Amino acid sequence: MVVLFGFIASILALLYSIYLIFNITSKPAGSKQMVEISEAIKNGANTYLFRQYKTLIPIVIVLSIVLYFFFGWITVGAFLLGAVLSGLAGYIGMNISVRANVRTAEAAKSGLKNALDVAFRGGAVTGLVVAGLALLGVTTLFYFTQNVALTIGFGFGASLISLFMRVGGGIFTKAADVGADLVGKIEKGIPEDDPRNPAVIADNVGDCVGDCAGMAADLFESYAITLIAAMLLGLAVGTNAVLFPLTIGAAAIVASVVGTFFVKLDRNQNIWNALYKGVIATTIISAILFYLISDFLFQNLNIFYAALVGLAVTLIISYITEFYTARDKKPVREVAEAGKGGGAVNVIAGLALGFRSSFPVAVSIAAGIFLAYYFSGLYGIAIAALGMLSVTGIIVAVDSYGPITDNAGGIAEMSKLPPKTRKVTDALDAVGNTTKAVTKGFAIGSAALAALTLFVAYSDAAKLQVIDLLKPNVVIGLILGGAIPFLFSSLLMRSTGKAAFAVVEEVRRQFREIKGIMQGKATPDYAKCVDITTRAALRGFVLPGLLAVITPLIIGFLLGAEALGGMLAGSIVTGFLLAIMFSSSGGAWDNAKKYVEAGNLGGKGSDVHKSTVTGDTVGDIAKDVVAVAQNPLIKVINLISLLFAGLIVTYALI
Amino acid sequence: MVVLFGFIASILALLYSIYLIFNITSKPAGSKQMVEISEAIKNGANTYLFRQYKTLIPIVIVLSIVLYFFFGWITVGAFLLGAVLSGLAGYIGMNISVRANVRTAEAAKSGLKNALDVAFRGGAVTGLVVAGLALLGVTTLFYFTQNVALTIGFGFGASLISLFMRVGGGIFTKAADVGADLVGKIEKGIPEDDPRNPAVIADNVGDCVGDCAGMAADLFESYAITLIAAMLLGLAVGTNAVLFPLTIGAAAIVASVVGTFFVKLDRNQNIWNALYKGVIATTIISAILFYLISDFLFQNLNIFYAALVGLAVTLIISYITEFYTARDKKPVREVAEAGKGGGAVNVIAGLALGFRSSFPVAVSIAAGIFLAYYFSGLYGIAIAALGMLSVTGIIVAVDSYGPITDNAGGIAEMSKLPPKTRKVTDALDAVGNTTKAVTKGFAIGSAALAALTLFVAYSDAAKLQVIDLLKPNVVIGLILGGAIPFLFSSLLMRSTGKAAFAVVEEVRRQFREIKGIMQGKATPDYAKCVDITTRAALRGFVLPGLLAVITPLIIGFLLGAEALGGMLAGSIVTGFLLAIMFSSSGGAWDNAKKYVEAGNLGGKGSDVHKSTVTGDTVGDIAKDVVAVAQNPLIKVINLISLLFAGLIVTYALI
Repeated sequence: MVVLFGFIASILALLYSIYLIFNITSKPAGSKQMVEISEAIKNGANTYLFRQYKTLIPIVIVLSIVLYFFFGWITVGAFLLGAVLSGLAGYIGMNISVRANVRTAEAAKSGLKNALDVAFRGGAVTGLVVAGLALLGVTTLFYFTQNVALTIGFGFGASLISLFMRVGGGIFTKAADVGADLVGKIEKGIPEDDPRNPAVIADNVGDCVGDCAGMAADLFESYAITLIAAMLLGLAVGTNAVLFPLTIGAAAIVASVVGTFFVKLDRNQNIWNALYKGVIATTIISAILFYLISDFLFQNLNIFYAALVGLAVTLIISYITEFYTARDKKPVREVAEAGKGGGAVNVIAGLALGFRSSFPVAVSIAAGIFLAYYFSGLYGIAIAALGMLSVTGIIVAVDSYGPITDNAGGIAEMSKLPPKTRKVTDALDAVGNTTKAVTKGFAIGSAALAALTLFVAYSDAAKLQVIDLLKPNVVIGLILGGAIPFLFSSLLMRSTGKAAFAVVEEVRRQFREIKGIMQGKATPDYAKCVDITTRAALRGFVLPGLLAVITPLIIGFLLGAEALGGMLAGSIVTGFLLAIMFSSSGGAWDNAKKYVEAGNLGGKGSDVHKSTVTGDTVGDIAKDVVAVAQNPLIKVINLISLLFAGLIVTYALI
Repeated sequence: MVVLFGFIASILALLYSIYLIFNITSKPAGSKQMVEISEAIKNGANTYLFRQYKTLIPIVIVLSIVLYFFFGWITVGAFLLGAVLSGLAGYIGMNISVRANVRTAEAAKSGLKNALDVAFRGGAVTGLVVAGLALLGVTTLFYFTQNVALTIGFGFGASLISLFMRVGGGIFTKAADVGADLVGKIEKGIPEDDPRNPAVIADNVGDCVGDCAGMAADLFESYAITLIAAMLLGLAVGTNAVLFPLTIGAAAIVASVVGTFFVKLDRNQNIWNALYKGVIATTIISAILFYLISDFLFQNLNIFYAALVGLAVTLIISYITEFYTARDKKPVREVAEAGKGGGAVNVIAGLALGFRSSFPVAVSIAAGIFLAYYFSGLYGIAIAALGMLSVTGIIVAVDSYGPITDNAGGIAEMSKLPPKTRKVTDALDAVGNTTKAVTKGFAIGSAALAALTLFVAYSDAAKLQVIDLLKPNVVIGLILGGAIPFLFSSLLMRSTGKAAFAVVEEVRRQFREIKGIMQGKATPDYAKCVDITTRAALRGFVLPGLLAVITPLIIGFLLGAEALGGMLAGSIVTGFLLAIMFSSSGGAWDNAKKYVEAGNLGGKGSDVHKSTVTGDTVGDIAKDVVAVAQNPLIKVINLISLLFAGLIVTYALI
């Protein structure tokens, strides 16, 4: 019966998405030039995505064979379903964005309200598809197998693909962005999104494959895995505890659909308020439904309180993230001030800020764990994670709105729409930057809780009564686990740096060899930049992914299940702390630059501005490649361990 | 009987140091100008040190009262002894350096051999004083009390003072260094150590208070604490296991004294080889003595093997550190190449290198733990740590040689000695940079093992049979413990950045207001820069120290002894990984810049050079402030927990 709710709610979300897709695509796409630019972005993005999927096929096949050998075809089926749905979430999210962006630019001609409508509807499609597909996938699997353990394969497939998409998309988007900026803005002094910049299309493609496809796949897996983990821990509590996650998932999706209707501009034309009304409405409706469901299923409210803890932690982490990265607050202003001492001092100030910010976030998560456990034990921690993620639909909607407006601005600039239109897209875009930062904090915080839930599920699966830090093997696991996110971060930074460097060289070459670009008399070879970025991203994204899959198996089979437990804990702690650190530093550097650009400390073109550009470039890679990839990384490590737990117990050397 | 060896060996080391001090101070100090400069450095350094000690007195008094209240006067005595000896090691190390530097410059006039002799003897004084005082202190305490537990107070005093000296000295030295470079080198284009730079004396003072005093206090505590931890774990094994650490400590000191005689230039005039011969001789003699002692005390060699594991891990970590930071190897060249993409890309490449390097070091430490445990259980891990640190005397000697030659070069430059002399000091200084990098790896690796030993000792003291990661409180402890080094690093970066910025402003002001500095017609106000740096360092060094003392007590009393165990493990893992990361990144940025300055990629003054200067500035703070302070940080956290373990068990809320 309860399972039926899951079906109905997810199908409702998907149907509503389809309606929105028709609604968006029926809008006018603007002039021939706008359509051409939009097509170039769309083609670049789809080409990248298909080449990425193609690169992944051999990896998926090999893993399927391994899984078949050890666990049989049902697990392979679940794994493939998770992988395909994760890829699909990314594909749909990206494709609606590349359609919504040009239509947002066109709608901007007739004012803010229309443009916001198109952009937010585009975001809503992604949000509802992510949540809808996740709930549908988990519900279907559970319905047909009635076996929660089988859903682990589904989660593994989902998180593996999302890891690759985050890493590949991240490298792509920042290589193109940094490459375009370093030559365009710094060396040539032309503005962002200027059509004379050969990397401008690659930059816009990057927004689609990173911020849309990567993000959608990532939050798909976060949500699906949190559902699965909560159901697994529910097994020890009782049938209702297994069904509860599906039920509140269904309730939250309905709340998200309703919430989208609350997104409306008020008289002040405040865009952030418009979006925020949707989030608040969804949160309140969800909370009310959670209350009713808890009361109905358990006849007590302890589990409801645990879910509330999750919602509260979400709000607190959002507040901390905003405090450390908002342009008008003291921390960011300090980073901007440090720019007076040069680029290096600006870099140090931003790093210091990031390292600092991870402490209060860690305290919030620790408090969340304490309270959730107090209310409902280990299951309570899973429910708190689910409480955070239940509002995924609306949060992703608000987040995906960001890259759409970013691209809309780019298209407006490139097709030389009048300043009035550009002003509308700029206003939308500024809010998009904030929503992106908030979602990052949300994704990281929920990932930490979800990963801890998986860690507990792993210990159940490996029949560990205890994971004892006084055993040397556990300490070894902890040290190595802690070191994995370090190595992983390094691989991403290095690949992105190299890729960015390749773009820089290509852009410099085009400016040098194609005469007349700067005068606007010759068209740069956009496709070449897209191609170079694609190849660099595909070169860089396999190794970090394999690292996540292979190291837990090595440690597990060599040093035993308990040592692997130590490794999981180590990877969660450093992965989470590094994610916060990189994300806050990056956000702060970005906004410190914008603070200067707004006319402070000498404004655009001053020495302080140059210093903050250095920080921002480091920060682009820090926040949009390294930070966001920690989330799927720690999930993949935990899921593969969970999947192989039984085999490790049987076959480990020690 | 065995205790007697400890007395004899440590007194031998101290007597030999006194002989060396007389030997050095009897050498000519050069021209009046040289003496004046040297006096200015000496006065600046001593003024700083005394103001630092004065700032520490209230903290030490408050802690003494607390300790008296809970543990009685013997512990207070041990604490004060540890604190005083740690401060004394720093004081002596610094004061011999400020005397040896000017005499090295003077000796350089008559060639490399004489200059090396003076500089190395200066280093040897510090090395032997550090090892001698540590062994003497622990032996004396043990002799009079016959109670290993009482030595914990000694260790806490030592590590607390060393933490403050590392932090204060680090902030001072890098604020002055970065401040001097940013204005002098980048804005004014004058060379390093140019007397026209108002911050030049502050820079040289910084070398003394950071690299000499801070380093000496740090390795004093490392060595003393490793001795104590090994003796504590030896309690469970038997009397001989308690005495063994003192015995091999005594043997290694004798080996270090003998080793100093092997430091001799061969015909190729290869300085590195000369120093290296001393290290190799000490290592071999130590290993032979360890073999004989193990055989005598235990009639088997398992403990000897554990000590060998420690020596092997030292060598491997040194190799890894060197590989990632050496100027002629691929990793550093990649960082230099990245400078072609600008300062930000150079920063990213260096960060990526640092994050990467922590992984192989973590694997080495993990392998060391595994093998040491295999040979002799938990006691074996303590012995491996001691095996690493037994060669402290000669390692510190080789390391302290670095800042002496650095200052000698500065004095030669400022007093305009002929280029021939300057060439000698430059040759000595270049090797000093490498020895400093190697010692850093040594200090960090040994600190990780020593801290783990303390962690085990803590669990004994708190009567914990198990520290279970499946308990939410332990996970909370792990997360918060992991976050402490993040917050700590942030505080150091922020304080140093602010202090550097204050120096920058002052130097700019002097260039602007004191006419004729650039023409060499007016003398800058050196003392003002020293004063500003002193005040900034003293402002910045209290909070990080208190953080280390207070957080473990809060967690312990609020969440219980087991949660505190989780916290200790978390702080060791992230503190260790961050230390390696910052240290390697910093070393690589430094040498990438030197690689460019050697004429590669455009050489000095090119755009690539400017990019690498940005990286190097970030790196200066990373390696010489943040990285080196993690070591005493994790020791202080572990020691205060060890000291209060009994009280926490009795009075914890949970």
